[in-house]
Amino acid sequence: MRDVYIVGIGMSKWGEVWQQSLRDLHTDAALKAIENAGVDHIDGMYTGCMTGGMFIGQEHLASLLTDYMGMSGIPAVRVEAACASGGMAIRAAFIEIASGMSDIVMASGVEKMTDCSGEEATQALAAAADQEYEVFHGATFPGLYALMANAHMAKYGTTRDMLSAVAVKNHHNGSMNPVAQYPFKVSMDQVANSVMVADPLHILDCSPITDGAAAAILCTKEVAKATGKPYIKILGSGAGTDTIQLSQRADLTTIKAATIAADSAFKMAGKTIKDMQFAEVHDCFSIAEIMVAESIGKFEPGKAGPAILNGETALDGAFPMNPSGGLKSKGHPVGATGVAQIAEVYKQLTGQAENGRQIPNSPKIGMTQNMGGSGGSSVVHIMEVA
Amino acid sequence: MRDVYIVGIGMSKWGEVWQQSLRDLHTDAALKAIENAGVDHIDGMYTGCMTGGMFIGQEHLASLLTDYMGMSGIPAVRVEAACASGGMAIRAAFIEIASGMSDIVMASGVEKMTDCSGEEATQALAAAADQEYEVFHGATFPGLYALMANAHMAKYGTTRDMLSAVAVKNHHNGSMNPVAQYPFKVSMDQVANSVMVADPLHILDCSPITDGAAAAILCTKEVAKATGKPYIKILGSGAGTDTIQLSQRADLTTIKAATIAADSAFKMAGKTIKDMQFAEVHDCFSIAEIMVAESIGKFEPGKAGPAILNGETALDGAFPMNPSGGLKSKGHPVGATGVAQIAEVYKQLTGQAENGRQIPNSPKIGMTQNMGGSGGSSVVHIMEVA
Repeated sequence: MRDVYIVGIGMSKWGEVWQQSLRDLHTDAALKAIENAGVDHIDGMYTGCMTGGMFIGQEHLASLLTDYMGMSGIPAVRVEAACASGGMAIRAAFIEIASGMSDIVMASGVEKMTDCSGEEATQALAAAADQEYEVFHGATFPGLYALMANAHMAKYGTTRDMLSAVAVKNHHNGSMNPVAQYPFKVSMDQVANSVMVADPLHILDCSPITDGAAAAILCTKEVAKATGKPYIKILGSGAGTDTIQLSQRADLTTIKAATIAADSAFKMAGKTIKDMQFAEVHDCFSIAEIMVAESIGKFEPGKAGPAILNGETALDGAFPMNPSGGLKSKGHPVGATGVAQIAEVYKQLTGQAENGRQIPNSPKIGMTQNMGGSGGSSVVHIMEVA
Repeated sequence: MRDVYIVGIGMSKWGEVWQQSLRDLHTDAALKAIENAGVDHIDGMYTGCMTGGMFIGQEHLASLLTDYMGMSGIPAVRVEAACASGGMAIRAAFIEIASGMSDIVMASGVEKMTDCSGEEATQALAAAADQEYEVFHGATFPGLYALMANAHMAKYGTTRDMLSAVAVKNHHNGSMNPVAQYPFKVSMDQVANSVMVADPLHILDCSPITDGAAAAILCTKEVAKATGKPYIKILGSGAGTDTIQLSQRADLTTIKAATIAADSAFKMAGKTIKDMQFAEVHDCFSIAEIMVAESIGKFEPGKAGPAILNGETALDGAFPMNPSGGLKSKGHPVGATGVAQIAEVYKQLTGQAENGRQIPNSPKIGMTQNMGGSGGSSVVHIMEVA
């Protein structure tokens, strides 16, 4: 397998974006990534999108989007693993370059979630759960994560304050991110007193509905060097699945797919969690960040909540988590999220994080963890300064 | 890049299948493929599906389906390029094995199209066209292909009989295919006198709405040999895109994406169209088979219709096309079609085509051409007896 590098990234402004359609959002991020990378063409494209069909009635996206980028003709395909679609696009591009088939591949992600009613958006997102065994019986995503939160609280004594601390930290980081949907800070009290969605999850425990796109340029070392731009190396890529239905899982307090994906990525990279200096993780709900931090092996079960509450994962802590602001503050256009995590790691490792969001002491190695639905899919990448 | 082989295939029975849900259909084909290949595990899975979301409200399919196969945990992702999703799944599995990342990967495809109204199915299929510039203005797929058919007839004198000959040939072949949805023969008169859908396309010019799944096991030579089962080699994989909107194309009488994909696959294989002994092509409408046969270079523009009418592409002709019965007779569960094309080539090259459908004189090399929408995407594979 050939070594694979990332040489540039691009993001649209995230939020409730009425002035850009899905194709506009994607073109925005894609052209920024190409310019940022300093390449004059791409050999192909993988685009993560969860459900263009249910949100805006448009499938066949990869073909449509290459056309709007002015690059019609190149091989292009959409990949989908619910909210892990973006990370899976990165993984597919990684494999294609590793194989020797292509030298420069774009991995992108996009979702346009606000061109429908809130009820339609909830229905579209629920397509990531098991329709026949969960959704038809009334489950929604906040409800599924609330079940996991209650199980985690019962088993490990995880508290309201620990959940709130995730939101407070991520909004603090996101307040320095120029593309974030909600770049404001929140207090522990604000989170705890925000409207209840599904007990114990309040609205400030939940990531928002977001329009947005992100893109990254993956390439060989020769291409990366020739651009003259900063680049980082992908050391490992891992993916895993688990049963989608919560009712079929042995343990509701851990994300097995994230453990499988992380183990696989660490093995490929020849690294362990102890080598990691920071992580972008999938905080679709506050409880998710806690569970993921334990599932990837950073903290013992039940120990992530206290660590987050104690500031160990703050920007200036021992192991910063979600320096970008995470899904919580930055927003969560589901298909784009996994690519945006990679974009943040690229910025952090190349010293380009804006507005004081840069992790102190120039980190040299970091990771991403992206997740589909309630943990039915997960994908992990390990990246290092080249 | 490592060499890649196909060592087994599986298909569900295709048709209006009320007794199997999407997950049942896929499990059926997937487990048949694993048994057919004689492997005891798979390292990962790529599943082609156009729109589980719009047809049955279910996304996140790859995770769900590995669970139902009893293989939860393995990396799995859905790929989508409208009706070319299945071919793209084959291509992704090919690249993963070529890269050295995995030794045994399943490529599968599935679509469950009849659990909704005809109007909903038409709307779901239309998501492969450009919503903003075609569908909102009333275009449907038969309408888009009718425009291309009229253009082809006007430019090259393509006739009603030539269109009918495609349907007659493919239904003849499909009558010998045990999984075909419509395994009956049709006459030239029956096609020409069937109900009009979009002038000049009658209903017997159109492929049907189908429930079905298909799967193939791709692997290294070492794995293929160890199984003791017949295997074939993938010599080349090519993919291409074109603008989705017909209004933006320079020429309505050719499928540019198919030309790009075929050229790319031939280049990788070190072969030309002249080396090919047969092809499975994307006959979603009778005119599509004619246009594709020209776009991949088998016939000069305007010459495919007369050749098909003269029997040159019959099972015992100089260049058999769609020995399986094609989309026309076998059915067209959109995400599964590209994988089923590969399954037919595997059967033909290993001498296993049933009921007299075997091409005479044991062909040694063949190709597939799979297409998304009205030609916005295309993927071509070249395979040879190992």
